[in-house]
This record gives sequence, structure tokens and C-alpha cells, in this order.
Amino acid sequence: MTNNQPTASLIVIGNEILSGRTEDKNINFLACELSKLGIVFAEVRIIKDIEADIVLAINELRAKYNYVFTTGGIGPTHDDITSESIAKAFGVGMEINQKYYKLIDEYYKGDLNEGRIKMVTLPVGAKPIDNELTIAPGYRIDNVFIMAGIPKIMQVMFEVARDQLDQGLTIYRQEITLHTSESVIAKQLTDLQTKYADVDIGSYPFYKDNAHGIGIALNSTNKESLENCAGDIKDIFIQYLD
Amino acid sequence: MTNNQPTASLIVIGNEILSGRTEDKNINFLACELSKLGIVFAEVRIIKDIEADIVLAINELRAKYNYVFTTGGIGPTHDDITSESIAKAFGVGMEINQKYYKLIDEYYKGDLNEGRIKMVTLPVGAKPIDNELTIAPGYRIDNVFIMAGIPKIMQVMFEVARDQLDQGLTIYRQEITLHTSESVIAKQLTDLQTKYADVDIGSYPFYKDNAHGIGIALNSTNKESLENCAGDIKDIFIQYLD
Repeated sequence: MTNNQPTASLIVIGNEILSGRTEDKNINFLACELSKLGIVFAEVRIIKDIEADIVLAINELRAKYNYVFTTGGIGPTHDDITSESIAKAFGVGMEINQKYYKLIDEYYKGDLNEGRIKMVTLPVGAKPIDNELTIAPGYRIDNVFIMAGIPKIMQVMFEVARDQLDQGLTIYRQEITLHTSESVIAKQLTDLQTKYADVDIGSYPFYKDNAHGIGIALNSTNKESLENCAGDIKDIFIQYLD
Repeated sequence: MTNNQPTASLIVIGNEILSGRTEDKNINFLACELSKLGIVFAEVRIIKDIEADIVLAINELRAKYNYVFTTGGIGPTHDDITSESIAKAFGVGMEINQKYYKLIDEYYKGDLNEGRIKMVTLPVGAKPIDNELTIAPGYRIDNVFIMAGIPKIMQVMFEVARDQLDQGLTIYRQEITLHTSESVIAKQLTDLQTKYADVDIGSYPFYKDNAHGIGIALNSTNKESLENCAGDIKDIFIQYLD
């Protein structure tokens, strides 16, 4: 299904996610938004706030995927090391962005300090991404989009980034709930996957309220195939439908 | 802080997470549990159900960290390819585990089929991890723990795996809420991080109910340092405390 669709990955830069302090909310948001754009979300890495690790992940993933997104580490405190790491990864220096320097100078009514200036000091070549909530920008450098970790701000930045992304073919989706066990339908499902090679058929069991069942998730850029496949599933497994 | 602590990573094998269909619940669970054990959770990768990608991630991470966990892809359907990929990564074959074959034969009252047998066909050398909920086991091979993707079952398997993990020094934690902006305290916080090199000081702004503030998260294996650092923070930023 994924041939010729643009690909993307996300690097979550966050000790707070890995320590269990914070539950990430950005992965699912980005997954849903990229899917709507026909962009294949191929990989996520969650790494610690360590420069060498950030540089390594950035350089691996920007070579591998059409787009790389990062969240986290662009605030004013000592543990915000994303921008310096990005500059290292690209082999460029850092410079104050004059336009955003003026904007935060206005926002903080002339009360600038080291931390506030840090937030407008970007890798050379970075193109700022507006942040209407708290002014300090995200940015794009080459195929890498640097965004804040706070979900509200991340989402505002993604809205700006979205217009810069090449879209892929629409990914059509359909989900069918079957009231049975995976092992009952596995063989027939394998045959259906062979028959409909251009449909991704995912089988996801669930357990809730003492009931169990399976969500059969279909994804395809070929709407006709997807509908035929869904029709076959409903015919073959009619006794397990709602 | 993290010297001489065991390290761990997690590979989430899941198209359903990357498509946005499902929001992962296992990362945060594992992060919290490993932290309690004094194990540094160093990296997470979320990858698609693609054999080559699984093999690559397994072999990279098992060489890099003391422990690797995986979630997802050990069910009976065509899209469950974790076990075959693990066998490839380790260069071993697959074999039916006789003990678990008998157990699922009893569980399904003799009604075995290809899919059910698949769930007890493990890489050679795998040591099964009991699953009291649905019988089909997880397993350990070398330093890699293979677990189910369904959170309830994953948690049952982790309870078994836990006893096999070397624990690190206790990681003490404390969090202090300050009602101010990060850029106000950034400079002093940097000085505190320099003073308390064995305390990880994380600064995490939050916005809720139109209020904003910062959570200062302290992590250290040195309880005295952590308490001294917390004391300094409360003294220095007394005007921003609750």
C-alpha cells in the first residue's frame, strides 16, 4: 500500500516520557494527522535529552524518511538542548533570529534575559514556524521540523508545518468488529490478505467489560479494493458481526 | 545519575500505533515500572510490522542496552510476525514448545488449528513467560523480552519478567510546582544543575485551566543530594511556591 507515499518519522526528545512522569500525547496526534495527509508514519523514537543521542537519531532518520519531526527541548532551561543538537547534526552554527527577537522583546515588554534569547537562537538556515500561543518559534531545517513538547503548542506548530508537506494518495480506512477470537479466523484472514495485496489488513483483539472481540482494521489507497475486501470479510464472517 | 544503573529499551511493534488507530498504553506503564526498579529506560522505538525493520531494531538495541522489551505481534494472525523476526535476528529456527502446546490444547479443549499452534511456536532457545490470562506465552531470549501488545496481557507478562531483571540503585524522585514561567528561573536553575551534578533536574511547563506553571522534576540515586537540591529550589523560588 505504501509505495510512493511520502514517509515521516518522529523523535520525541524527553526524559520525562522515559521516566514515566509524563504520558506522551503527541505521537497519536501526529499519527492521526499524517494519516489524513496520506503520509506514511514509519517510525517513532523516544530518546533522552542527550546531545549525542539526538544527533545520531536526527542524522539517521533524516536520511531515511521524507520528513522528520521532533518534539521537546526547545524551551529556555538548561535541559532544553534540542536546538544545539540540531545545529551539531547539520554541522551549522547558531544565530539569533532578528524577526523573532523583536517579537519576543515585544511579548516580554523589553524584559529579555538569557533564557528568552535562547528560544530565538536557531541553527543557521532554520526557517521559523510561528507559535501564536507563546511566540517562541518552532522551525524547519531541510526536511526536519522542530516542535515544542507541550501538546497545545506542538499542535499550533504542526498546523503551520502541515502546509509545507507533500501529500500522498488518500489512505482509505474501514474497521469491522468481529465477536470471536483471532485464532478462529486467522487462516481465512491470511487468505484475504493474499487476495487483497494492496489492502493492509490489521487484526487487533480487544478485551473490555468482560467481552472480547477483534477490530479488523483495513487501510488502503485503493478505495475499490478496500470496499471489496470489507465486503468479503462481512460475507465470510457474517456470524461474528454485531 | 545513571552510571552503573542497568539500561533498557522498548520496541513497540505496531502499525496500529503508527496509523493513529490505537493510542499506546505500554510505554508509560513500562517507564513507571522500570523506574521503580532503578533501571534506566533509555530509548523507545515504535516501528511497523515489517520483518527487516524488526530485525534491525532488535539487533541494534540488544547490543546497546542491558534489556530490550518488545510489545505486539505475537498473536495468531498473518500480521503477527514478531516471533519469526526475532528468530531471524538471533539466527535461530522456530520450534513448537511442548509444554505450552499441551497447555493451549487443554485451554482450547483439543480444538487446535494453525493460528493456535503458531502462538506456541517460539524461536529456539526462547524461555516462555507465563500468561495466566490467555495462556499463549511471551518469552525471553537472551536479554530480549517478548510481550503481547494488549496492555492487560503485557502487564501480566511483565510481572513474570520483573523477577528476572537486575535492579539498579533506587531512583529517588521529587517534584516541585512553581507558579511562574521557565524563562524567569532558567538562569538560576542552570546554576543549581551545575551545583547538583548527580541530580537530574527537569523543567516541564504546563498550561491548564488558563493557569500556567512549571513542574520541576528531580531524579537522583543520591537521596541526600536530591533533598538538598529540593531545599535550595524551595528557598530560592519561595515566591513561586503554592
